[in-house]
Amino acid sequence: MTFVFRPKLFVNKIDELLIIKHKIKSGLKTFAYFCQAKIEIMPRISEKAVIMPASPIRKLVPYSEEAKRQGKLVYHLNIGQPDIETPDAALHAIHNFNDKVIEYSHSAGFESYRNKLSIYYKNQGIPVDSEDIIVTTGGSEALIFGFMTTCNPGDEIIIPEPFYANYNGFAAYAGLKVVPVTSRIEDGFALPPVEEFEKKITSRTKAIVICNPGNPTGYLYSQEELEKLRDIVKEHDLFLFADEVYREFCYDGYRPFSALNLDGIEQNVIVVDSVSKRYSMCGARIGAMISKNKEVMAAALKFGQARLSPPTVDQVAAEAALDTPHSYFEHVIAEYVERRNILVDGLNKIPGVFCTKPKGAFYVVVRFPVDDTERFCQWLLEDFEYNGETVMMAPASGFYATQGLGRDEARVAYVLKKESLVAAVKCLEEALKVYPGKK
Amino acid sequence: MTFVFRPKLFVNKIDELLIIKHKIKSGLKTFAYFCQAKIEIMPRISEKAVIMPASPIRKLVPYSEEAKRQGKLVYHLNIGQPDIETPDAALHAIHNFNDKVIEYSHSAGFESYRNKLSIYYKNQGIPVDSEDIIVTTGGSEALIFGFMTTCNPGDEIIIPEPFYANYNGFAAYAGLKVVPVTSRIEDGFALPPVEEFEKKITSRTKAIVICNPGNPTGYLYSQEELEKLRDIVKEHDLFLFADEVYREFCYDGYRPFSALNLDGIEQNVIVVDSVSKRYSMCGARIGAMISKNKEVMAAALKFGQARLSPPTVDQVAAEAALDTPHSYFEHVIAEYVERRNILVDGLNKIPGVFCTKPKGAFYVVVRFPVDDTERFCQWLLEDFEYNGETVMMAPASGFYATQGLGRDEARVAYVLKKESLVAAVKCLEEALKVYPGKK
Repeated sequence: MTFVFRPKLFVNKIDELLIIKHKIKSGLKTFAYFCQAKIEIMPRISEKAVIMPASPIRKLVPYSEEAKRQGKLVYHLNIGQPDIETPDAALHAIHNFNDKVIEYSHSAGFESYRNKLSIYYKNQGIPVDSEDIIVTTGGSEALIFGFMTTCNPGDEIIIPEPFYANYNGFAAYAGLKVVPVTSRIEDGFALPPVEEFEKKITSRTKAIVICNPGNPTGYLYSQEELEKLRDIVKEHDLFLFADEVYREFCYDGYRPFSALNLDGIEQNVIVVDSVSKRYSMCGARIGAMISKNKEVMAAALKFGQARLSPPTVDQVAAEAALDTPHSYFEHVIAEYVERRNILVDGLNKIPGVFCTKPKGAFYVVVRFPVDDTERFCQWLLEDFEYNGETVMMAPASGFYATQGLGRDEARVAYVLKKESLVAAVKCLEEALKVYPGKK
Repeated sequence: MTFVFRPKLFVNKIDELLIIKHKIKSGLKTFAYFCQAKIEIMPRISEKAVIMPASPIRKLVPYSEEAKRQGKLVYHLNIGQPDIETPDAALHAIHNFNDKVIEYSHSAGFESYRNKLSIYYKNQGIPVDSEDIIVTTGGSEALIFGFMTTCNPGDEIIIPEPFYANYNGFAAYAGLKVVPVTSRIEDGFALPPVEEFEKKITSRTKAIVICNPGNPTGYLYSQEELEKLRDIVKEHDLFLFADEVYREFCYDGYRPFSALNLDGIEQNVIVVDSVSKRYSMCGARIGAMISKNKEVMAAALKFGQARLSPPTVDQVAAEAALDTPHSYFEHVIAEYVERRNILVDGLNKIPGVFCTKPKGAFYVVVRFPVDDTERFCQWLLEDFEYNGETVMMAPASGFYATQGLGRDEARVAYVLKKESLVAAVKCLEEALKVYPGKK
């Protein structure tokens, strides 16, 4: 006779669960002695495990899988996985990997790669030496190392919202509280006024986190905006985390301004970088943490040593990718500009749909005339098709920390070829004619 | 005029630092107004960054680099980086990676790989289905996901010491307290008596962590020993983390017993695995977290989603490696047995040196007749050579959590070919004739 007690129902109520579980546990033990039954009691998972948010980008995946099983063609505008080909130089390096043993690298990454990376930054006008770089397993790990190294549990980090949803996850890793400052779709998600940041600063505030050019907004911060942030950071002695993984993707003649070029806060800036988008090699999981602050970097290296090293073959490929000719980016950027224009112009022609034209990255946050984009996006996959096709988007509420915001917005990634984007816009136009929750 | 205030001297005294820094900060600001100087004040790093231990395996690296610059040949017995060749199947898969875009995989790893892994486990007599597996970036990430998912900051984990030093690092990640139970070199590092565990259990105890076969000890736990642990785990409703990355490396006819085969604690066991040692592909960074506890796995997947996915090409290689013929392991194990015998027998012939003959992994903890192995290991690199050669080992104190233990012990990895091990033993014999701190 086996009783299995699985306290899943109470999983969001930690304290209650604790009490109930202890009661049941002792009760069951008495009962077990009485009838000699075999009792299986599950140990409790952590508070972080409960708090940790599921990815808003990936949580509709079961619905898209079901739609595909039904034979629908799904346009994936939900995820930043470009269809652009990885540069030949990188693929070639993989095909020609010549070692007989796939060994660990240095915990900070191969020296040759860090040296070449520093040249890449210097060519971009960013003063980075190889000792300012730790090669990480994706940009994700750079942010985890950064948060772990600089913030204590309970510290607060201020982030303009909407922001890349996984920042919530990394904050949960380190036990941090995310404090949002809201930017608005009407302003194209420009930096909120400095006063809005000042209002949110407390004795626990440890850092400001930005993504520039922005995911999910596509917004490109100007030098002027960044200097305003610099002044806040300096005044309150905060860290400034700048996620600059979309650096190459700036349009309409605009150029990115790196946080590493902000004068006077050299010890406060930590930049997160990655080859994922730059060279369309998301699956390589090669990123970098960059800072001039030697104390931070020495501590981050200890976290790096604990996990031994970033992947070896992928570092070799990432190093080779640095030889990619400039023409590759010219081609890619021309392609993204066309895609953006098709998408943004097409969407704005649909009655009630609104978005601005972003200057960077390859995302745009779009307002739809619907009750709730969570419902709308799920409905698109479950209940709609147009000529056997439908669209998958990421509901924007998951990119806001403030409850209730983004309900009528979705993030759209223009990572598919032009014909697909035209078809996807048409799908959305037709969908909005029949969606029951239209406003 | 620039004043740079770098509060490094106080870095171990967080509270003091806070007070001093605030005082100096306000003082400096006044001073700045007065003389119009540019003041650069660094924001403070986290407590974890201070606590996080440097790797005892890697911290002597600067001395070995210097020794090499001086022209010495250094036998690296300090690190578990085998010289065994990666199986052809894995290298072949890398050379033939055929995708045009290196895309993300599923956050839990490729389904095809998980399916094939589950067959691998079943062939080993371990009942694992593909949904019980999350592919991780090395075994390291599996342990981080496991600790994050099951333990709250301040919780205690009991680990028999000496243990793999990076467990300290992963515990620091999650804010956990490591509680050691000491095993002894005279017993070959057998499992300490159950009473020793019982003594250490408090209301904050959340898990027991073992490595089997053991790093750094090479000890292989018997089924009987594991069943004793099972009873403690069941009685106190704990999690049992079993790091089984050395599963294939068992000698003298002994077979490993997996924690996943322990009857009655299926919901409590979390196994950490990796291809690093099994297929001598440490640099691939492909591991796995395995558990039958669906609540734990669902939570761990959220941590997996935040970091997007494990590396793609490396997963393809790891999947291909599963086709490695059994003869590969027969050859490798025969090789390790010879290496172990050369090393262990050779070392025990040196007066005052002692170690037992481990039945698994490829490490042995050795007692040396010296004042302090930290000093001895550094001296070997800095001040000693025999025919232009010397030896690098990992001082064992870093593998103990109890202060003061392991001072006369070092971990030696028999990952080099036989001739090198013979030469390394000779080096150590000669070194002990002249080492000033000999006892």
